[in-house]
Amino acid sequence: MNSKVKITFLGGVGEIGKNMTAIEYEDEIIVIDAGLTFPGDDLPGIDIVIPDISYLLANKDKVKAIILTHGHEDHIGALPFVLQSLNVPIYGSRLTLALVESKMKEYPKVKYKAVSVKAKNVLKLGNFTIEFIHVNHSIAGALALCISTPVGNIVHTGDFKVDYEALDGKTTDLARFGELGKKGVNLLLCESTNVCRKGFSMSEKSVGVTLDKIFEANKEKRLFVATFASNIHRLQQILDLAEKYKRKVAFTGRSMINVSEVAMKIGELKYDIKNIIDIDSINKYEDKELLIVTTGSQGEPMSALTRMAMGEFKQIKLRQNDLIVFSASPIPGNEKSVYNVINALYKLGADVIYDELAAVHVSGHACEEELKLMHNLVKPKFFMPVHGEFRHLKTHKDLAMRLGMEERNIILPSLGAQVELSANSMRQTGYVTAGQRLVDGIGIGDMDSNVLKERLQLSEDGICVVVVNINNVSGTVTSDPFIITRGVVYEAESEEFVADAKAAIIASLKEQDLRAVEPSVIKNTIRRNVSNFIFRRTKRRPMILTIVLLD
Amino acid sequence: MNSKVKITFLGGVGEIGKNMTAIEYEDEIIVIDAGLTFPGDDLPGIDIVIPDISYLLANKDKVKAIILTHGHEDHIGALPFVLQSLNVPIYGSRLTLALVESKMKEYPKVKYKAVSVKAKNVLKLGNFTIEFIHVNHSIAGALALCISTPVGNIVHTGDFKVDYEALDGKTTDLARFGELGKKGVNLLLCESTNVCRKGFSMSEKSVGVTLDKIFEANKEKRLFVATFASNIHRLQQILDLAEKYKRKVAFTGRSMINVSEVAMKIGELKYDIKNIIDIDSINKYEDKELLIVTTGSQGEPMSALTRMAMGEFKQIKLRQNDLIVFSASPIPGNEKSVYNVINALYKLGADVIYDELAAVHVSGHACEEELKLMHNLVKPKFFMPVHGEFRHLKTHKDLAMRLGMEERNIILPSLGAQVELSANSMRQTGYVTAGQRLVDGIGIGDMDSNVLKERLQLSEDGICVVVVNINNVSGTVTSDPFIITRGVVYEAESEEFVADAKAAIIASLKEQDLRAVEPSVIKNTIRRNVSNFIFRRTKRRPMILTIVLLD
Repeated sequence: MNSKVKITFLGGVGEIGKNMTAIEYEDEIIVIDAGLTFPGDDLPGIDIVIPDISYLLANKDKVKAIILTHGHEDHIGALPFVLQSLNVPIYGSRLTLALVESKMKEYPKVKYKAVSVKAKNVLKLGNFTIEFIHVNHSIAGALALCISTPVGNIVHTGDFKVDYEALDGKTTDLARFGELGKKGVNLLLCESTNVCRKGFSMSEKSVGVTLDKIFEANKEKRLFVATFASNIHRLQQILDLAEKYKRKVAFTGRSMINVSEVAMKIGELKYDIKNIIDIDSINKYEDKELLIVTTGSQGEPMSALTRMAMGEFKQIKLRQNDLIVFSASPIPGNEKSVYNVINALYKLGADVIYDELAAVHVSGHACEEELKLMHNLVKPKFFMPVHGEFRHLKTHKDLAMRLGMEERNIILPSLGAQVELSANSMRQTGYVTAGQRLVDGIGIGDMDSNVLKERLQLSEDGICVVVVNINNVSGTVTSDPFIITRGVVYEAESEEFVADAKAAIIASLKEQDLRAVEPSVIKNTIRRNVSNFIFRRTKRRPMILTIVLLD
Repeated sequence: MNSKVKITFLGGVGEIGKNMTAIEYEDEIIVIDAGLTFPGDDLPGIDIVIPDISYLLANKDKVKAIILTHGHEDHIGALPFVLQSLNVPIYGSRLTLALVESKMKEYPKVKYKAVSVKAKNVLKLGNFTIEFIHVNHSIAGALALCISTPVGNIVHTGDFKVDYEALDGKTTDLARFGELGKKGVNLLLCESTNVCRKGFSMSEKSVGVTLDKIFEANKEKRLFVATFASNIHRLQQILDLAEKYKRKVAFTGRSMINVSEVAMKIGELKYDIKNIIDIDSINKYEDKELLIVTTGSQGEPMSALTRMAMGEFKQIKLRQNDLIVFSASPIPGNEKSVYNVINALYKLGADVIYDELAAVHVSGHACEEELKLMHNLVKPKFFMPVHGEFRHLKTHKDLAMRLGMEERNIILPSLGAQVELSANSMRQTGYVTAGQRLVDGIGIGDMDSNVLKERLQLSEDGICVVVVNINNVSGTVTSDPFIITRGVVYEAESEEFVADAKAAIIASLKEQDLRAVEPSVIKNTIRRNVSNFIFRRTKRRPMILTIVLLD
């Protein structure tokens, strides 16, 4: 009983995305979530980023389960890769597991065991007992966790908000959080995404009200709604409005079709099958009888809506009587892509409604007042904010202190941090290996930082390739140097530029006795001289690749 | 008197930035503004983007003047390049011209004539008479124009907002716009930046109120404020607060030092010289006696604040007792950089206040209600929205129609559009050459789209260079092919990969009789085979550069 619980942060702290936390007691580890994140401009050519799980692999025999709080990519997206090396059962709500199953179809070789749980279920895993608690979020089937351990209860909120008008009538189980708080919670791990937003998040139902007005005011138009496929409650409201306004619904976009089918199959999405039509049959209906529900709310280049906007979508040509509603806000970083699509839609003569013009979206994350409510109910002894950049975690810490917590009872976790928790103490003991693994093409984590640096240099200044044939017996350059640039400047691809560059190379080689020297020395001489020549002429420093061929 | 006025849009329509419009009557052209824009991710390695002025160069003798509405980069930034080929006088307010002068110091060879004007001045230029009208904006010295022409009055608002509590007591000259409306305005060109924002923009003074509270609540701390150097009224409020709270002011960052000096010199910024100190002498003062006013509010990599956040700023080491206020909002696209700096500041133990946490910034552009007011006062016969992406222009058109304008009296201009205006008609006649010229390194407009495509391809998938020596008499490959990749995958730089690639090249060449064929055919064979080989192994399509050397 002297053992402590170790909490190890493998993702989702100091960053938005790729959430993953390990809770460990003696020879048992349970993992909460296995998410991905999408790469920024600093990672060109990378498809997705997943957590580095070296720590779990080094402790493979201890890992007993992966618990999924909900089905968003930043919580389940790394599973195909994690399950390849870590064969443990996964637990999650029915919708979460259905989304995992749909994703895993692309990885038929990876076998795994999935166990469905629901709110109020209690799961016993060795020394841990995990209770699942219903929370509202922008996806159905979201669960918070109360993990009872030999050193006390740990509450992990997952992603949540408080929606008093929840579409299915089920508000975040505030009473249960309150009960747990009364019984005693040793540690709260609470999400921080919207901690900088004052007040309360709006109810999902408010979006329905706005959409209803839009349906009402545009009865003659052909209607399109773009939204996140996984936002089942949003889809439910859209389906209900289609029924109210007697429109047939066609889903388009791969993830929209997948997710709506999955959700319909397990009964999370209620609908009348007569009202669902195939996208190929929309021409049988009048504009006013149609609602097309599509992917592309983030301006993703290959999505159905973007292809429609660019005139590259086979089944649908957009035109004057169309109204496209973006029922989503641009995720930070996607603004330009989204506005490009909106501009293109307007240019086709379609009308567009998006978040700047109407309240067509609400966030799924708790704002300041909701976070205060959670702290107030759970009343933890210790607190660590999770799911956020450092500024979010710091602001969440300040909030907890304003609510009366002492600074020494709060830790701001960073990537790889390991924290030990006992019944009456919490302290950071150090760091384990953690970070990002990059997935690109068919490779997982095969990108080292050199390759990325190379790509960035190539994108800024281009490349110059120089080939020189040398006879190192006679010490002569045996043919005209070959020089070619790509992505430097237009001028550098001109004959004159190339001739001058060649002259510079030959001049530089004349300064050296080529008989005695190593090819690497010759290469360096050429590289330095060509680089300086190009800089003088273009003020750019392209990558220089020098190839010295010995006759 | 049968001639018409031609309006030609060389920038600022269908885009944010690089504003430039030409107004032409018979053999006279006046140009309004000459702005730049900053490149997006689709233009790697490009420094700035300026308008293509081919149309003006083709009509060089007609161009009589460039009129500057205010001193922001998106209105004056292209001047150094435009004035190199177009030697015409420029007109603008004192502050605008002072900023131009400061910018032109970097181009000592470019001579130009500048004439200072102010609100209520009337300038006669051939057939045009230009009246300058005071407007509020996020820079002092902003002017709208009423251009009287033989076919009637044209009002160009420039960038504006309506600030009833303007810091210098001078609200946008609403009465004058109203008088002009009564007299008759044929065409209104009105900015559209914030047309999607409901309501009224906040007064600049409201920022002063917020800042005052921050100064009051943090009397013991060392204070930093980051803002736009050109926002003179913001700087004035900050200087006034420094005086109120008995803090010495140190400016840092090149543009902050330049602009504050310029504004002080011409009296736009009022201050007590005793209160300004050099950044090198801040260590003589206690924390509570200091205010550092810095660039870097957009997270620009080389700015003073970013260097402080990264610990690379010589004179200032940030620490626990520092408070940094971002008195600015991130310009769309800059969010990530700004938040990176904020995270870094927090990690150093400093405290940070930014727009998500407090009302520390207001926009300089008219929101919906202010635009309605402008339309109401000016009551133009014809209307063209300017300064905005297509979605802004379209929304502005819808707004004008809601206010009673007929659709046939509105044109949505696009880049290069030329519109003919007579006393009672307006129609688009066609397009002239227009677009973007890219400035990079020392080159102006020397980037063609090929070079940029090359850079983008390089950044996504890297490059593979193949060198093959062939004797086309004997038809043999005379030495081992040479192959090297950069930025593809780590694996592709391994010996095994290179050996396999070489084998693939040799195999592909065996299929051909090398004696008879052109080098270009051999190149294509190699390129195709290497590309397919790499795709099979890495699922990537790097650029392939094939060099065939003939012995």
